[in-house]
Amino acid sequence: MDLSTLQIPVQKTTDSQLANVDFSNLPFGKVNTDHMFICTFKDGSWQDPKVVPYQAISLDPSAKVFHYGQTIFEGMKAYKDSKGGVWLFRPEENQKRLNISAKRLAIPEVPKDIFMEGLKTLVETDHEWIPRTEGSSLYIRPFIFASGRGFHASPADEYTFIIACSPSGSYFAGKVGVRIEETYSRAANGGVGYAKAGGNYAGQFYPTQLAVADGYQQVIWTDDNAHEYIEEAGAMNIFVRIGDTLLTSPTSDRILDGVTRKSILKLAEAENIPTEVRKISVQELLEAQKNGALKEMFGSGTAAVISPISSFGYKGQRYELPQLEESYAAHFKKRITDIQYNRAEDPFDWRYPVK
Amino acid sequence: MDLSTLQIPVQKTTDSQLANVDFSNLPFGKVNTDHMFICTFKDGSWQDPKVVPYQAISLDPSAKVFHYGQTIFEGMKAYKDSKGGVWLFRPEENQKRLNISAKRLAIPEVPKDIFMEGLKTLVETDHEWIPRTEGSSLYIRPFIFASGRGFHASPADEYTFIIACSPSGSYFAGKVGVRIEETYSRAANGGVGYAKAGGNYAGQFYPTQLAVADGYQQVIWTDDNAHEYIEEAGAMNIFVRIGDTLLTSPTSDRILDGVTRKSILKLAEAENIPTEVRKISVQELLEAQKNGALKEMFGSGTAAVISPISSFGYKGQRYELPQLEESYAAHFKKRITDIQYNRAEDPFDWRYPVK
Ligand SMILES: Cc1ncc(COP(=O)(O)O)c(C=O)c1O
Ligand SMILES: Cc1ncc(COP(=O)(O)O)c(C=O)c1O
Repeated sequence: MDLSTLQIPVQKTTDSQLANVDFSNLPFGKVNTDHMFICTFKDGSWQDPKVVPYQAISLDPSAKVFHYGQTIFEGMKAYKDSKGGVWLFRPEENQKRLNISAKRLAIPEVPKDIFMEGLKTLVETDHEWIPRTEGSSLYIRPFIFASGRGFHASPADEYTFIIACSPSGSYFAGKVGVRIEETYSRAANGGVGYAKAGGNYAGQFYPTQLAVADGYQQVIWTDDNAHEYIEEAGAMNIFVRIGDTLLTSPTSDRILDGVTRKSILKLAEAENIPTEVRKISVQELLEAQKNGALKEMFGSGTAAVISPISSFGYKGQRYELPQLEESYAAHFKKRITDIQYNRAEDPFDWRYPVK
Repeated sequence: MDLSTLQIPVQKTTDSQLANVDFSNLPFGKVNTDHMFICTFKDGSWQDPKVVPYQAISLDPSAKVFHYGQTIFEGMKAYKDSKGGVWLFRPEENQKRLNISAKRLAIPEVPKDIFMEGLKTLVETDHEWIPRTEGSSLYIRPFIFASGRGFHASPADEYTFIIACSPSGSYFAGKVGVRIEETYSRAANGGVGYAKAGGNYAGQFYPTQLAVADGYQQVIWTDDNAHEYIEEAGAMNIFVRIGDTLLTSPTSDRILDGVTRKSILKLAEAENIPTEVRKISVQELLEAQKNGALKEMFGSGTAAVISPISSFGYKGQRYELPQLEESYAAHFKKRITDIQYNRAEDPFDWRYPVK
């Protein structure tokens, strides 16, 4: 199939819910738009891509997603500029990463044109749902799950690929304190941590609940071997500023290769901000905190963009981070959102027009 | 609720499929019985347990099971003896383990009486589906998944607990060759490997496909740190016989505490068969193979009971195991199935009557 010739049929709803939504008071990811994109894998190929009214899915209780967690997802956003133009941010990165996840989870890869045309057709169909309030956006969730049947622990023979959208407010409310994890882990060497596999997230919930019970909002994941190195901040990549140097952990088979992370690295490089991509030990963090070199920490990800970390906990002790006048977090958040909302030059061609 | 007073309502099907099933030719886990047990967690409690006709489930596309793999399961079997008596095997172990999994995956635990009475009522309702052919049995699959909605990466507020059954033939067809894994891993230290969490299984599919492409049936999982110790055999626990000693890896937070495994250990102990529960290195295995001390290897689990391993692969080399006249595998398989089918004494009270 050729990118330019794939036409996604659209079946429009006759019962729009748009008028019932309070756009001034949006939760994160709870409200869905009027339509969804759906495509099915069976008999060895992805078939029948289409946009349909948002609707419930009917599945046999033996569908493998229920038993073996064979499911992957992506997270992206659509932005509306002041002239009504609709934009995506580096969507091809999500398309590629979805297929990287698919391969690791033994899910059939989705052809690029199905992903891209499905995505664009859906966003165009539901473009009136894109919030214009500052801090709100249209969150887009592509996901694939095993809809094929059977209790045999082996890959399914049928899959469903859906893209759903949700006009959303901010991901975090208030300050974000994190606890450096000393007991639990999110990913194994040789495991699926680099994939956006459903099971990675379910495994994080309980340790995160324990951190929340201790007054934190998120967990800083460490290596599963000795909990010596910091790897990710909940479902975000982690950045640390020591002196004027911006540090982030290298990606690995345990760490998700975040689009926001690599965009920050690229921007920093272009601005000659010193960056280092290398392992960051908890020890180094503690020492930098002690001698005052630790200026800031933040998480990066599509949902929260950049989430400044106000304090971190380790071995029962809580360490506050300074409140900076000129933080890298605020700087990069502005740089990235300015590009996303078409308020600034786009030197790296990251903006992708939908309409 | 009291164990003796919980009554599970049964809504019987008017369209039984029993007559359409070829019991002489059963696949594993593909055919479902006429009914299923279902119970829902909402507003903070498990509600409305009942047996209903087996039927499709309708879910919102934002149900968290699709996105975060928040799902756990159990596997058990029902057996019919020659007089028509129906038995389960140590079902309370599965009930306990389901709640151990639930806790780790931030899923609300299921009260014991709901699990036990639901299970018994369902098996009794569908008891005519229990195969009587040797080697076939009624496989029972309890599972819980996040049916609550939302794209926020946090635990759901609603869950569905289902028990479904499938009359099944044997899990493996033919010989089982295994490959000792040197690259991929199934579980992290501090992860969810000890839980029957869906995501653990999805992560195994791809490495298993690679092993299958190389002519093996299963993967022997090793520690994720250095791939030095053998831990599990696919979705089974692993046993090794060196000389006359029966060895198995100790359970840990990476290894499932299998009911079959602990039953074998108990029987071996009672028969004064020397057993050692300790780490088994790949090196030890290779040396024992070389000097002839390695007599047999087998996997243990509910689905396959005991699955003798005919050969193993390591670093591109394939090692055949001898064919024993008097194998521990055959011995324990007979001992366990004799208890399960009520053909022998039950010294440890493992049999559990359904009707
Ligand atoms: C585990 C994890 N790390 C990091 C990220 C950030 O990736 P991205 O910037 O592409 O959203 C995500 C997803 O949002 C994630 O799930
Ligand atoms: C990973 C894993 N190991 C071992 C087993 C064996 O456990 P059991 O004997 O309780 O069936 C299972 C489940 O059957 C399993 O999924």
